[in-house]
Amino acid sequence: MSVNEFEIIRRYFTRPAAIDSGVVLGVGDDAAIVRIGGDQELVIAADVVNEGIHFPVNTSAQAVGHKALAVNLSDLAAMGADPAWFTMTISLPQADEQWLGQFASGLFNLADQFGISLIGGDTVRGPLSIAINALGRVPVGAALRRSGAVVGDQIFVSGTLGDAACALQQIHHDPDNVDPALRQRLDFPTPRVELGRRLRGMANACIDISDGLAADLSHILDASRVGAVLHIDRIPVSAEAASADARASLILAMTGGDDYELCFTVPPVYAETINQVSKEAGVSLTCVGEIVAEPGLIMVDSDNQRVSLGHLGHDHFAQGI
Amino acid sequence: MSVNEFEIIRRYFTRPAAIDSGVVLGVGDDAAIVRIGGDQELVIAADVVNEGIHFPVNTSAQAVGHKALAVNLSDLAAMGADPAWFTMTISLPQADEQWLGQFASGLFNLADQFGISLIGGDTVRGPLSIAINALGRVPVGAALRRSGAVVGDQIFVSGTLGDAACALQQIHHDPDNVDPALRQRLDFPTPRVELGRRLRGMANACIDISDGLAADLSHILDASRVGAVLHIDRIPVSAEAASADARASLILAMTGGDDYELCFTVPPVYAETINQVSKEAGVSLTCVGEIVAEPGLIMVDSDNQRVSLGHLGHDHFAQGI
Repeated sequence: MSVNEFEIIRRYFTRPAAIDSGVVLGVGDDAAIVRIGGDQELVIAADVVNEGIHFPVNTSAQAVGHKALAVNLSDLAAMGADPAWFTMTISLPQADEQWLGQFASGLFNLADQFGISLIGGDTVRGPLSIAINALGRVPVGAALRRSGAVVGDQIFVSGTLGDAACALQQIHHDPDNVDPALRQRLDFPTPRVELGRRLRGMANACIDISDGLAADLSHILDASRVGAVLHIDRIPVSAEAASADARASLILAMTGGDDYELCFTVPPVYAETINQVSKEAGVSLTCVGEIVAEPGLIMVDSDNQRVSLGHLGHDHFAQGI
Repeated sequence: MSVNEFEIIRRYFTRPAAIDSGVVLGVGDDAAIVRIGGDQELVIAADVVNEGIHFPVNTSAQAVGHKALAVNLSDLAAMGADPAWFTMTISLPQADEQWLGQFASGLFNLADQFGISLIGGDTVRGPLSIAINALGRVPVGAALRRSGAVVGDQIFVSGTLGDAACALQQIHHDPDNVDPALRQRLDFPTPRVELGRRLRGMANACIDISDGLAADLSHILDASRVGAVLHIDRIPVSAEAASADARASLILAMTGGDDYELCFTVPPVYAETINQVSKEAGVSLTCVGEIVAEPGLIMVDSDNQRVSLGHLGHDHFAQGI
């Protein structure tokens, strides 16, 4: 199924929300927002992970449990929401007790870490697939979105980019020879929930990087009707990724989505505050560019010369409806 | 995968909810209930339908769209909740525009009928499977549950039972010769949302019949720690089902789950009110038995003699976690 086919499918399921439906934000962001009365809004993320598509065959059960929840927590993080509850629909080829025990351990370790409770779901027989809905809360009007970037904003990313994509590449070439630090980044991504929380009232736009920086930043630009200049020499790449393949690591950082870091824009006035946020959220934050009026994503090198990375972004056969 | 295997899986995902998690009712009923502040609680159902398991191969796309949402609306109905929003994760073998158009028409016709809005989801490539989470609202404390049945309660069921199972049997024997009325019941079940709403404050226990009356009534009995006497001669069977196979229709009514009718218990004082509820909800309601103290489900015939239908209930390879 091609990107174009996903576009066709999406068209069939995108309709304006009915009046008085309580929908604040429907299909098209990292998660939906609905009104529930009182001073909080409800944020709902729905992401599925399938074996062989979203994680390699033979991924450890613990990693599968972790990742299935992590990608949804990452969506909540991108909205600045506090995780609360989740449901899980799991399709399993068989009931293997050892596998189940390890899967549950990976799932619940992460759930406990972020105080999110499993409240229900469904089990069916079939190819390994886990569909999770994660529900979070956010003060009314405080949710982060893709659509608020303003000309002059600085563009930040958290952590390092391309690590998970680098691990995937190593698995593809030689599954017995994968850098353990990179494999850890692929198998056990850290959802940036605390960062998302602290960006409320500060970031004008935010998204989690699930399709690669180039593709996901473009989502912010499209939704905000602005453009960006991205300084590729500033893009944070880990020592492990750089030493694995220095030349490819930058391309992987631009196009690899499985790190689940956040990309966000803030007005320049917060330049100093960002250091404090980084410390409190326990993750490095790097300014990689700025929002400009002219539409489109311009990449420049250290000499301010325009560069192209060819066809950027990657389709891993799964996109939000 | 056997019923026993589902039991094993369920064990791994059933944990007591953390203190202060806001969970009113977690894993184990038709849907979960969580506190959201204010005078409403949030009810969340999560049900998946897979081709070849929950609906026959070659089911029309319109019916698949209808059914995927209907089974979740039925869960909300069983809790007495007002439908509000839903997410959908759909796995598709390919993007066939004609199929998608008909699927969307079946889905949204039903959604519009019950005022529920699609707010997000995910699309992946794979065998046909639709996982929906339906969110509803109910006044604090007013949700119907499986666990409240009281000795002396009368047991009611809505509509007629066994129609969908009868259609499935006909499809199995001769797919070109299926009674259209029965096929309609299988493909386009009517979620009893209005009935569920009107049972708030009246019914002591409620469940939707997705595994057959015998199995689902037993869920009420187990959760409520009571027993029941069921008068099998009172079980409502449609003329179509009776004429298709009079002998089998009663067994199908007891063990067929795909009608998505409601089974509920009410104190005898409401005997008169029930007629009014039936009229307002637009569905027949039949008293089929009463709750007794002695645990277990006793079936009696018109002479009050105990009868057995052998191994009752059917496993269609899908049960709530």
